[in-house]
Amino acid sequence: MKVERVLHMNGGDGETSYASNSRVQEKAILKTRPVLHKAVAAAHALSSLSSSSTGAMVVDLGCSSGPNTLLFVSEVLGTVADQREEELAAAAGVGQHQAPSSRRTVQHHVQFFLNDLPGNDFNLVFQSLDMFRKLAVKEKGEALPQYYVAGLPGSFYTRLFPDRCVHLFHSSYCLMWRSKVPEELARETVINEGNVYIWETTPPLVVKLYQRQFQEDFSLFLKLRHKELVSNGQMVLTFLGRKNNDVLRGEISYIWRLLAQALHSLVKEGRVEKEKLDSFNIPFYAPSVDEVRDVIKQSEAFDINHIQLFQSNWDPHDDLDDGDLVLDSVKSGVNVARCIRAVSEPLIAHHFGEHILDDLFEMYAHNVGVHLQKVKTKYAVIVLSLKARRVPKYHGRNDDYY
Amino acid sequence: MKVERVLHMNGGDGETSYASNSRVQEKAILKTRPVLHKAVAAAHALSSLSSSSTGAMVVDLGCSSGPNTLLFVSEVLGTVADQREEELAAAAGVGQHQAPSSRRTVQHHVQFFLNDLPGNDFNLVFQSLDMFRKLAVKEKGEALPQYYVAGLPGSFYTRLFPDRCVHLFHSSYCLMWRSKVPEELARETVINEGNVYIWETTPPLVVKLYQRQFQEDFSLFLKLRHKELVSNGQMVLTFLGRKNNDVLRGEISYIWRLLAQALHSLVKEGRVEKEKLDSFNIPFYAPSVDEVRDVIKQSEAFDINHIQLFQSNWDPHDDLDDGDLVLDSVKSGVNVARCIRAVSEPLIAHHFGEHILDDLFEMYAHNVGVHLQKVKTKYAVIVLSLKARRVPKYHGRNDDYY
Repeated sequence: MKVERVLHMNGGDGETSYASNSRVQEKAILKTRPVLHKAVAAAHALSSLSSSSTGAMVVDLGCSSGPNTLLFVSEVLGTVADQREEELAAAAGVGQHQAPSSRRTVQHHVQFFLNDLPGNDFNLVFQSLDMFRKLAVKEKGEALPQYYVAGLPGSFYTRLFPDRCVHLFHSSYCLMWRSKVPEELARETVINEGNVYIWETTPPLVVKLYQRQFQEDFSLFLKLRHKELVSNGQMVLTFLGRKNNDVLRGEISYIWRLLAQALHSLVKEGRVEKEKLDSFNIPFYAPSVDEVRDVIKQSEAFDINHIQLFQSNWDPHDDLDDGDLVLDSVKSGVNVARCIRAVSEPLIAHHFGEHILDDLFEMYAHNVGVHLQKVKTKYAVIVLSLKARRVPKYHGRNDDYY
Repeated sequence: MKVERVLHMNGGDGETSYASNSRVQEKAILKTRPVLHKAVAAAHALSSLSSSSTGAMVVDLGCSSGPNTLLFVSEVLGTVADQREEELAAAAGVGQHQAPSSRRTVQHHVQFFLNDLPGNDFNLVFQSLDMFRKLAVKEKGEALPQYYVAGLPGSFYTRLFPDRCVHLFHSSYCLMWRSKVPEELARETVINEGNVYIWETTPPLVVKLYQRQFQEDFSLFLKLRHKELVSNGQMVLTFLGRKNNDVLRGEISYIWRLLAQALHSLVKEGRVEKEKLDSFNIPFYAPSVDEVRDVIKQSEAFDINHIQLFQSNWDPHDDLDDGDLVLDSVKSGVNVARCIRAVSEPLIAHHFGEHILDDLFEMYAHNVGVHLQKVKTKYAVIVLSLKARRVPKYHGRNDDYY
């Protein structure tokens, strides 16, 4: 399986689409707003300093398709507009007797690139841009900067841009996806029997394979992005991580374990072959904060502005952030199943076929409900703000490798 | 009707898709290769001169979805690769004793933006990029420049890029589309009764409205692109024009007249209301070479490298370019109908509903067949190569209009 060909969020805007089931991810964007706003302000200031342009290049990696895609664009434009309003107010104070046109000589612009894998429903995003612009103009008025939006298909584990042109990279709920299932795991079907991810019965070798894949992927990601960023360029990354130090009992392990259980039920019913289940492993790894910090340190390419782990309820419609109470575990099970289906359906359909999807996720909803009744497990989410260092050691002229 | 919301080539890759019915447009790209190659070479040289970058920004306006989209990309990459091969050969001759890596220090890249209206099937294009890259690497080897491909939704009658960043604009078979049906024509349904475009019975007022719309659109297009081009930036435009000086009997008028006849038949059968037909006008105008030249001259923004009109058979599968013989007019009728359906179906479906499409285009195929038996009419195609002048009069600092 080529992950970059198969993996994408469910397209369209129907019942099982990502567009209709992405409230967990929306919450993360709203939660990380202060970090994002700071990075945008820094990137904007950086682009204003440059002599050759008055524009910032801003990239969302793994933009998906749905309201969250343009929520990010809106957040960036809002921050820049606020800065412009301050500038305009200051200019109005200083130069009241000047003609309005001469007060508006510096025309900042923002160039957005919305990146995702080629299977993403870019058409849906593009068709909503017109309405989005109308609303933005209405809301922000004169302070709205000139902006341009392009779509950029491709894996963020490859080069996406020429050298040193990007001012800000953003990525939300993507970097837990691996570039591939670790090779030895993809070859040997028996070494993680009955599991689809790391679980209590996963042997240490498999854990190591997953961890090495994370280190390789994340280290490559940092190198690639550093090449593409201008000096002091900003990067805000939010992704699923692990609060529990025990890698076998990470919070997200339960999410996949409950899915494996539903697949087991289908095996028992004779509807899925056992070998199919044994050979299925999610190209995914949720690291701890320390694991993330280690790779960044080794890269020697970035300074950490901010790193933090926060928790988020599995059920996107459960807004009770404190406490361990699940009001309606059956309903929560259904809600969680919808979320997980929206992000994993293409992977599962590719491996098992589409015919099992409805029943699988019905069983899954049930399993999640039962689990939540016992313990209100939460997602552990890492938010990370980085600044690109000027010239790291590996950045030589003859370095053609990346 | 908002043209930018409705107009697009038929999506997907099915029987009635543009992807499967775009051989006429493919022929135009192949026919205009020498002009394009010269412009690419000029643009590439221009980008190499620039101190701040070693990359060319190349834009296809109205890229559509299908093989032609990437045929253009391939032509550009081929030209740059040829230039690089020459450079590599020259460098190998001069510096045989140098290490290979030091002979390859100048790493040119090309950044492509594929633009079309938001209804275009960008997903189809994006999903074919991976296979395209594999073929390109196989074919061009080491000479293949680093390249990046983004999609850019939006009307080319609006700003699409920041100031002065584009090295080459290309557009094939698009600029005969108008930004809108002339307003007075869209309001008054009776002034072009029974026609969908300019025809013998079209009153002079309506002809003037169409011509004024062309002048406004094309003049706006030139101004916008000039702002976006670097000094001496290149532009290659291919679009349907008119060989016949008599505007009422332009070659393309027959294409639309035969469609109006098919609509008339549906009116007679009571399946389409007469008012519906009378209120339908194609947002389209095919100008003469002189009309094109006049607008360019008035713009004061471009020098003409090259302008030429060539002819192309209506039937894309008729490769007999000389003579007036149509071998199988029935088959040719079917082939032409497929082409016209692939480019006009969304417009027609929006106005008349989808239910008439199959019958309409069957009648249309018949009408075209009968017409071709009488006279082998051809498309008149204008190909135009322009160079952006340094600083035209209107390019002032306070000119916020565009």
